Amino acid sequence: MKKAIVLLSGGLDSATTLYLARKQGYKCFCLSFDYGQRHKKEIEYAKKIARASSSPAQVIKINLPWRGSSLLDKKLRIPQLTSLRTYELTNAIPSTYVPGRNIIFLSFALSFAEAMAAEAIFIGAHTQDYSGYPDCRPEFYRAFKKVILTGTKSGVEKRGIKIQTPLIGKTKAQIIRQARQLGVPFALTWSCYQGGRVPCGECDSCYYRAKGFLEAGIRDPLLSR
Amino acid sequence: MKKAIVLLSGGLDSATTLYLARKQGYKCFCLSFDYGQRHKKEIEYAKKIARASSSPAQVIKINLPWRGSSLLDKKLRIPQLTSLRTYELTNAIPSTYVPGRNIIFLSFALSFAEAMAAEAIFIGAHTQDYSGYPDCRPEFYRAFKKVILTGTKSGVEKRGIKIQTPLIGKTKAQIIRQARQLGVPFALTWSCYQGGRVPCGECDSCYYRAKGFLEAGIRDPLLSR
Repeated sequence: MKKAIVLLSGGLDSATTLYLARKQGYKCFCLSFDYGQRHKKEIEYAKKIARASSSPAQVIKINLPWRGSSLLDKKLRIPQLTSLRTYELTNAIPSTYVPGRNIIFLSFALSFAEAMAAEAIFIGAHTQDYSGYPDCRPEFYRAFKKVILTGTKSGVEKRGIKIQTPLIGKTKAQIIRQARQLGVPFALTWSCYQGGRVPCGECDSCYYRAKGFLEAGIRDPLLSR
Repeated sequence: MKKAIVLLSGGLDSATTLYLARKQGYKCFCLSFDYGQRHKKEIEYAKKIARASSSPAQVIKINLPWRGSSLLDKKLRIPQLTSLRTYELTNAIPSTYVPGRNIIFLSFALSFAEAMAAEAIFIGAHTQDYSGYPDCRPEFYRAFKKVILTGTKSGVEKRGIKIQTPLIGKTKAQIIRQARQLGVPFALTWSCYQGGRVPCGECDSCYYRAKGFLEAGIRDPLLSR
């Protein structure tokens, strides 16, 4: 059975990506990161999703002592809706951007994939909603593929590991519709940047999730419990 | 003063790179990794070198539970001279190759550089001696530069962080001669893959170091203590 590493954050997008990869016939090995984010709730949700899909999961602890992001530095404020509109208007990169985050995640996934002789790495990045994050754009993934081809044993030996970004061009509503078809258990996904008992409803991640469910015409079970 | 992140392994090459970066006028922030390598001696030497050059140093602990390298897996044997000749003849990648290692190191350095607004990352990789490691080749560094341009805030904002590989085309003998000119304290560098009291003299890293000193006509103080 062909093997894949799936980067799992605990959110909707990566959960959908995991279910997609399984549907494509991959045995999936999930990889999550405890990187000093504001709360551990998303890691717990990542483990739940992995369990629900009967996929083995690993959590890697990494330390980014230099921070440089409102997701890592509790002294900084997570942007809320008003600032979000400013980001959209100015095309600026939100303060929740974590320097090099997806590059770090992909490099660990790549190491794992090489050691396991996995064929592919799946990541649920997409440009539609988070257009401010440079490491969610197709041109970045194209560049990273070149890194694999030139900088790894599997690349040199022409067995190059594929980077799969099946959601890259989709809107949140499209992802949510696809997730429902795939049977993704929405209640086991967590999107909010805050780690409260219920989603805060005010951070940009809550906003995009709510907007996506609304546009998809689907009820978010996380909001109605 | 312009700032740079310098990847410091504790060996000769990265020490020389640090001294070069300082000579080029950079305030250097050293970054080393405790990644489960066979011994911690090289990390101690990295700290010594950083101290000798009056540069702040950080050690990042990372966990690669999948291993996939004789440097990480004590059940595997470190190749010695006979197998080394085979590698050279067949152009094979040695078992000491750690999947994705330099990609992981660079991605942390990149995160650090972005958070600190540093202009450059210095890495002491070179192709001459370790031709078997794909992540020591110029084409890999060219590909990684593209990753920075496309996948980071600094890249998107056209302040792209430079990757500097000043030793890339040099032989070990050339590096050692340059190191002497720069005043690199050879006795504070450690190359051996084993972490014994003295270098083992049998691993490929010891072999290349000895060959380099011999060709440079310089005495290695580490061998004559």
